[in-house]
Amino acid sequence: MKKLLKAVLPAGFKANGVACGLKKSGNLDLALIYSELPAIACAKFTSNSIVAAPLIVCKKQLRSAKRFQAVLVNSGNANCFTGKAGIQDALACAGFAARELGITKNSVLLNSTGIIGKRLEVIKIKQAIPGLVSGLSAAGVHKFARAIMTTDTCSKEVTVSLKIGSKAVNICAIAKGAGMIAPNMATLLCFIMTDADISKAALNKALTCAVENSFNRITVDGCMSTNDTVAVLANGAAGNKQIAGGKNLRDFSGALGEACLELAKMVVKDAEGASKFIQIDVSGAKDQGEAKVAALSIANSVLFKTAVFGENPNFGRVAQAVGASGIKIKEGQLKIKLGSLKGKQVKLKVDLSRGKAKTVVFTSDLTPEYVKINAEYN
Amino acid sequence: MKKLLKAVLPAGFKANGVACGLKKSGNLDLALIYSELPAIACAKFTSNSIVAAPLIVCKKQLRSAKRFQAVLVNSGNANCFTGKAGIQDALACAGFAARELGITKNSVLLNSTGIIGKRLEVIKIKQAIPGLVSGLSAAGVHKFARAIMTTDTCSKEVTVSLKIGSKAVNICAIAKGAGMIAPNMATLLCFIMTDADISKAALNKALTCAVENSFNRITVDGCMSTNDTVAVLANGAAGNKQIAGGKNLRDFSGALGEACLELAKMVVKDAEGASKFIQIDVSGAKDQGEAKVAALSIANSVLFKTAVFGENPNFGRVAQAVGASGIKIKEGQLKIKLGSLKGKQVKLKVDLSRGKAKTVVFTSDLTPEYVKINAEYN
Repeated sequence: MKKLLKAVLPAGFKANGVACGLKKSGNLDLALIYSELPAIACAKFTSNSIVAAPLIVCKKQLRSAKRFQAVLVNSGNANCFTGKAGIQDALACAGFAARELGITKNSVLLNSTGIIGKRLEVIKIKQAIPGLVSGLSAAGVHKFARAIMTTDTCSKEVTVSLKIGSKAVNICAIAKGAGMIAPNMATLLCFIMTDADISKAALNKALTCAVENSFNRITVDGCMSTNDTVAVLANGAAGNKQIAGGKNLRDFSGALGEACLELAKMVVKDAEGASKFIQIDVSGAKDQGEAKVAALSIANSVLFKTAVFGENPNFGRVAQAVGASGIKIKEGQLKIKLGSLKGKQVKLKVDLSRGKAKTVVFTSDLTPEYVKINAEYN
Repeated sequence: MKKLLKAVLPAGFKANGVACGLKKSGNLDLALIYSELPAIACAKFTSNSIVAAPLIVCKKQLRSAKRFQAVLVNSGNANCFTGKAGIQDALACAGFAARELGITKNSVLLNSTGIIGKRLEVIKIKQAIPGLVSGLSAAGVHKFARAIMTTDTCSKEVTVSLKIGSKAVNICAIAKGAGMIAPNMATLLCFIMTDADISKAALNKALTCAVENSFNRITVDGCMSTNDTVAVLANGAAGNKQIAGGKNLRDFSGALGEACLELAKMVVKDAEGASKFIQIDVSGAKDQGEAKVAALSIANSVLFKTAVFGENPNFGRVAQAVGASGIKIKEGQLKIKLGSLKGKQVKLKVDLSRGKAKTVVFTSDLTPEYVKINAEYN
């Protein structure tokens, strides 16, 4: 398996990003991926009960169509909490892209990210679509990665390749996210393009596992977004024997997991206002669930996160957070090992002495800068 | 019912506070309440699994003794996560106070507040006890209130009086707390002295209800403390007909509830680094539990709290927080009314349109100052 911290689109995919005027800054804010070959798709969405309009449309497309050829994403507006009008707006956008690309409306997947509760300025998107489509290219993927950013300070790209039989299979994954990041994905969008030939069931299995061990293991502020999406398109262009199970699926799953974990860490490293990247290893849990609960209770504790920011080895706050998690732990069972707080990378090891399960989660510190960014964001 | 925002001890109680050297600042840090008449007592404690040593001792005293005459509290050190040695230290402190007061060790209730995970400097407490006891007076209650403070910027005192039959009954309540404040009480200590003659069962009922509607309805940072305690001593000096139920209990409960709610609001107003006091009214819930879950999900959202700090009417973050709470609400059901963010008091009304239950919770905004205070606290 080879890994590159840069997006290289697999054969048959093109992308682009333009500025259509949704962002006041004039930065890129409309992004498109196009697959020349109709591709199968799987996706995981936020578990927030309030779900953005494009996700409602996207879920419908995934149920009704079998093949997909485009992913249209805007930043600057989440098109969420916008009622029926928001759904009409999302459908209209899918229509504009479909018409310009000469494909069916159902084969366009959608997403939006940005402010919640404002109507999308559909006219700006409509006007920008022809330029967006005419500029599609393999190299356009970097523009795509920048056009889906909101408070991100850098784009997040990774490419992984592996051998399935004698064929090279490529996975290119792009994410955005810096705040409203909680387990269960948060304001995180991730789009994955692969040229693998893989059954839908196998792709879904690989994606579920990859997300559980990457995006579901990070938290920035414990706030679960309304727009979280991780979607993968597989166009089969690699010409490999179709992956359906066994070693081939394990290999593909491993590579997909690696790509997702890399992006998840990038999201935490780029966390709004963060000055430190924190790795929390919890061991000695009764089961995986307990390990995750303990780790996330620490990772979401604002008192722990401010202590790390202050390079203040206040391990009492770790004990407090574990005790508050609902786990019926006794004081004598809890072993805490907090590494140096001086550098940019902080490691915390917690042993619950209750069993053999363990997990790792990643988070960031909480800084005055985080507060400023989120006080002003509009 | 009369209410005074100042502590006036009922007949038979004395108090004092001294500086014994636990706080580096030299501020008051050792506090004592003494009841000349043996009093009955009830208390509510943190639900954190990691419980501070003085609480372990306190719970034992409450089970084994029937009457209590003293409450000894230190600030500057929480005596938590200190193992068996911590329990020995707490018992030793109870012994020093009991000896000096000439009462039994079992009749001394205890608490500590401050840093977690450091041994208590028992010798400093031992040396300060004689002065603490000799200085006991009714007016000493204000020193008591200051001596239990940690990051609080002001003491929190309230006195409520009511008539039970022809007799005046007085309730004096003192609290501390500014951070590590979550529902389920947080680093909140509250001591309540009353001259009411009341049965233990009735007192417990009144306290449960008062805490549920006050300290369990506030949150500053969602961090549940290891030392939370609300304790009440009733010495019967008012000479009223013993309260055991009926209208007399309802009246007493109402007055106790009012005292606790007043203190709870003071805690939120004094929240670490806060610039705004936020009242969240949730209506239209299926039941009380759902109303509370929705209200606290908003109140604990760092994104909502930073938006309020920035006077940024980002109501999408309210929708996001309700949706993330686990309540299966549909977008069309949710009605949000966010009042002006300009002043020091902010009101948010949320209607879930699902039923008739409602609740109110109080919280504060999240500011860069909060982060600074907690980065440096040691």
